[in-house]
Amino acid sequence: MSDALIDAVNARWNSRTKPPGSLGLLENLARDYCLIRGDSLPECERLGLYLFAADHGIADEGVSAYPKAVTREMVKNFERGGAAVNALARGHNVLVKVIDAGVGTGTRSFLREAAMSEAELRSAIAAGREWAREASGAHDLVGLGEMGIGNTTTAAALLAAYENKTGAEVAGAGTGLDGAGIARKAAVIDEAMRLHDLQGKSPMEVLRCLGGLEIAQMTGFLLEAPRLRLPVMLDGFITCAAALAAIRIDATSRETMLFSHRSAERGHGLMLEALDARPPLDLEMRLGEGTGAILGMGLVRSAVRVYREMASFADAGVSGPA
Amino acid sequence: MSDALIDAVNARWNSRTKPPGSLGLLENLARDYCLIRGDSLPECERLGLYLFAADHGIADEGVSAYPKAVTREMVKNFERGGAAVNALARGHNVLVKVIDAGVGTGTRSFLREAAMSEAELRSAIAAGREWAREASGAHDLVGLGEMGIGNTTTAAALLAAYENKTGAEVAGAGTGLDGAGIARKAAVIDEAMRLHDLQGKSPMEVLRCLGGLEIAQMTGFLLEAPRLRLPVMLDGFITCAAALAAIRIDATSRETMLFSHRSAERGHGLMLEALDARPPLDLEMRLGEGTGAILGMGLVRSAVRVYREMASFADAGVSGPA
Repeated sequence: MSDALIDAVNARWNSRTKPPGSLGLLENLARDYCLIRGDSLPECERLGLYLFAADHGIADEGVSAYPKAVTREMVKNFERGGAAVNALARGHNVLVKVIDAGVGTGTRSFLREAAMSEAELRSAIAAGREWAREASGAHDLVGLGEMGIGNTTTAAALLAAYENKTGAEVAGAGTGLDGAGIARKAAVIDEAMRLHDLQGKSPMEVLRCLGGLEIAQMTGFLLEAPRLRLPVMLDGFITCAAALAAIRIDATSRETMLFSHRSAERGHGLMLEALDARPPLDLEMRLGEGTGAILGMGLVRSAVRVYREMASFADAGVSGPA
Repeated sequence: MSDALIDAVNARWNSRTKPPGSLGLLENLARDYCLIRGDSLPECERLGLYLFAADHGIADEGVSAYPKAVTREMVKNFERGGAAVNALARGHNVLVKVIDAGVGTGTRSFLREAAMSEAELRSAIAAGREWAREASGAHDLVGLGEMGIGNTTTAAALLAAYENKTGAEVAGAGTGLDGAGIARKAAVIDEAMRLHDLQGKSPMEVLRCLGGLEIAQMTGFLLEAPRLRLPVMLDGFITCAAALAAIRIDATSRETMLFSHRSAERGHGLMLEALDARPPLDLEMRLGEGTGAILGMGLVRSAVRVYREMASFADAGVSGPA
């Protein structure tokens, strides 16, 4: 990403009618967006959310406050427009695409065996790459969202494996576990680490043993994005687990990632550190679905509009510093 | 503000298809909005920004990085739609009203005499109250914005007087002072505290001696809002100085205030503490104009839309906790 482009973006910002730097993170967001697009004056109007849903075998191990059936029920809710993400998407003019990445045909419990076969993983990654190519034709900026009862346990296990953490360090309340539930979740993760013995295994093999089908599709999506120069807005803990898998598989996938919010889920701080990410929002949200990604995309679109539309000191006849 | 209304709002939130509390601060924002409106299912669609501009005599004392003429020049820029606040307002469908609260006819330097006469202050407060009545007929939620070269010094002096702080504790970089400039600003504030000897004076007299005409109009606006049940979104350091004056004059004015962001201006943290305010956004912005207020209003509108539009577990056929 070129120094000349950074200089051009900074020069435009600094000639707009405001003190230099006074729009704070909005200036950074617009700059990051320009760098991903490789364009000093890009549009950012067509926003989409790709919402990947899948069942998780691990949900049968007593790690969630909600029954597994909720995944399928919520997919119907998304399709009818009744979920939080739908209301936010309407308000922000974001198109939502709900993708069945494995509802009904989900993963196996990683407490007992590998979550996916090699063929299942390969197929999910390929599907994610294909969705990214589709998204790139329709949208300037795309967010990721997810639904899958049990998937905070899956995401926490991936974090533990990739970052060499204990269950206690990565397990959080998810949809609303109490202290005993969180302890059970941490124990499940520790037991899975012993079972799969992932030291020295490839990042792809870690994803196969512990991942979810929606996480694998999002990983494929993120791996494909750089060659499309497609900016991808991450949401919370689950989508960031896909981001972590993607950067371990191919570090260049980091270049097209944007981050929306710091979630209230316990392990998200560690995850963001591992991703070297400082998201602009901290609204104590912990719902997933892409709700944070929509707010983050709205902020980037606002930043780019301000960047494009503001008058310069010269054009507006406004005096500079005394 | 009634317990029955709080219970009704919480009951609605908790019956929506999401884990209780998982929308974090969005749930709080919608709840606060309902309480101000006195309605368990209010609309929040018609947003307006009232942007008050005025000149400050203190700007002649070498406390700003920009010349005084910029206030008038920026008012023209607002009217032509070229400023940051205009671009943000277009993107968020917020109507902007620019009010000449004293451009050209501004205050006198509070380093030499009282900034306003009693008649000037009374007239500004009355004008602000009238704007609030007008706003209440046209908008569900109104933000405050301001423009006035020198007004971070005015706001810092008000903070020092109301909170008994030194110049060094309240003076910040404003539009971009260096260390020497900030030290000069702090010294100006300390000298003004000695000159006006405000110990034991009424909050209104403090405002008359140190305030600005835009700040006084916003104070009047905030004093009138409770009887209109009009939610008013504050912006950064300057609008919060008006909020501080308003709560010292009449503590009930706090009830209709909403807060948008923590600005990067040095004294804003102290100001927010004095107002017992925890704004949802921290984007390191320090521009004023109402730019933060627009983002804050957008967040409240999103929160209320989600609150109103989401399906319940029963309607969507989604299972509750196991």
